[in-house]
Amino acid sequence: MELYVNFELPPEAEEELRKYFKIVRGGDLGNVEAALVSRITAEELAKMPRLKFIQVVTAGLDHLPWESIPPHVTVAGNAGSNADAVAEFALALLLAPYKRIIQYGEKMKRGDYGRDVEIPLIQGEKVAVLGLGEIGTRVGKILAALGAQVRGFSRTPKEGPWRFTNSLEEALREARAAVCALPLNKHTRGLVKYQHLALMAEDAVFVNVGRAEVLDRDGVLRILKERPQFIFASDVWWGRNDFAKDAEFFSLPNVVATPWVAGGYGNERVWRQMVMEAVRNLITYATGGRPRNIAKREDYI
Amino acid sequence: MELYVNFELPPEAEEELRKYFKIVRGGDLGNVEAALVSRITAEELAKMPRLKFIQVVTAGLDHLPWESIPPHVTVAGNAGSNADAVAEFALALLLAPYKRIIQYGEKMKRGDYGRDVEIPLIQGEKVAVLGLGEIGTRVGKILAALGAQVRGFSRTPKEGPWRFTNSLEEALREARAAVCALPLNKHTRGLVKYQHLALMAEDAVFVNVGRAEVLDRDGVLRILKERPQFIFASDVWWGRNDFAKDAEFFSLPNVVATPWVAGGYGNERVWRQMVMEAVRNLITYATGGRPRNIAKREDYI
Repeated sequence: MELYVNFELPPEAEEELRKYFKIVRGGDLGNVEAALVSRITAEELAKMPRLKFIQVVTAGLDHLPWESIPPHVTVAGNAGSNADAVAEFALALLLAPYKRIIQYGEKMKRGDYGRDVEIPLIQGEKVAVLGLGEIGTRVGKILAALGAQVRGFSRTPKEGPWRFTNSLEEALREARAAVCALPLNKHTRGLVKYQHLALMAEDAVFVNVGRAEVLDRDGVLRILKERPQFIFASDVWWGRNDFAKDAEFFSLPNVVATPWVAGGYGNERVWRQMVMEAVRNLITYATGGRPRNIAKREDYI
Repeated sequence: MELYVNFELPPEAEEELRKYFKIVRGGDLGNVEAALVSRITAEELAKMPRLKFIQVVTAGLDHLPWESIPPHVTVAGNAGSNADAVAEFALALLLAPYKRIIQYGEKMKRGDYGRDVEIPLIQGEKVAVLGLGEIGTRVGKILAALGAQVRGFSRTPKEGPWRFTNSLEEALREARAAVCALPLNKHTRGLVKYQHLALMAEDAVFVNVGRAEVLDRDGVLRILKERPQFIFASDVWWGRNDFAKDAEFFSLPNVVATPWVAGGYGNERVWRQMVMEAVRNLITYATGGRPRNIAKREDYI
């Protein structure tokens, strides 16, 4: 079976794939049946008339050119492959501002030793987890173990140490903190608006490790300007890898920004794990099994 | 029964104590049998010949004038009363530098969007927890839930999701991170030296939420100067509340400092919880029960 790959593979992934596939990187793609990609263009797709299966390395699938993918082509994502790393990062993005580590750290460096900043507790506080996939589930469990009253929000009910709700308002109302790990699709694009953020506590911390586009950009900017105590801590930005487009956020005192490094971009081992997880799913496909993380086309078109 | 109190009580604590004690704040202390204090001097003690029981509000007992406390006086500490708050803070002090939130946050603010800093994982890494009391136990459980290989160190074996050791060397060897929540007593004073820190990974993060004096000050300074990637994140300092005495640490780029705010000093609710916990222990004493957290005199003298 011919497999199209358009990025540099770690050696262990290449070795494993060669047992099942003929790897094709360019030239005639007429006999390609499967593709292993991080991103793919409409032009590439047009050269693969016999394509049946696309395995994506990233957890999110929002960036694919869905209109150019024929309906008979199966698309598999890679949710969960970087979940440990992203969940750790989400907790760090939450706790660093929430426990005032950054604020006190800066004060101490300038010789201001006053204890005038109250440090909120996680224990006993209302905390929202938006999205109960692999990442949200891990974050929810840790926050519950820390004694938070966790409210879990997602489209479909999921059991865990949280009070489930499918109402965004109920999840965020009076919450002292929120962690967003929602996937970006047509149901979630622009979902979190100013009026939702305004339901949270005055000094809430909102963390995003999903996709920026789940949040309304103007709404986030407005709450940050209206509420100096509200903190937005995010690894993902509307300009995607063009961070300069969101520079107006980074200069605000109540923003903690990181450049999309929670998962594979921030750690080589995580990236290799993600590729190997994708490789295993491809082998499942090649050997007639049922691959995991099959995308629902209707979530994107 | 007469009770000596030398600090301002929250109203709910005063109300509860009045049901069992006559509260004395000065004047003739000759009939005082019990004392509720955060700190106490040899002069105060000399005025209380009939003193039998001292209840301390703080978790640590290292600051008491032990030489001036007669052996027949029972001293009770308050370990665990602020453990939730301190454990949360310890995790935040660890994760903020470990996951490079502070470093990337600063880079983004100055318009440097490069992803050139590798972010270590907690999952799968060796992490040491020094001290397996109420705080260390909580921290160890969370780190284990995040998938770390936790090594638990204390004087006496304690079961939990860690590999127990009573060897400091074994706990710290190749550890990527350590959280110290040891009590300060004659066994732990100056326990953690340069040679122990040097056993850790080159880019390890060492967190201290116990007492500064458990660590050898010169040893910490030496490792920080020798290893620019080694990070020391601490809430407690050798100068105690006189933070200026340790200012040379705060100016180092590989130090994250906070001014002893993990527990009651950083949150009013935590302080009130601590006082109420101490009040309950005093009432246990007054009603003939067995108070918790009785100190071993020989740990301090």
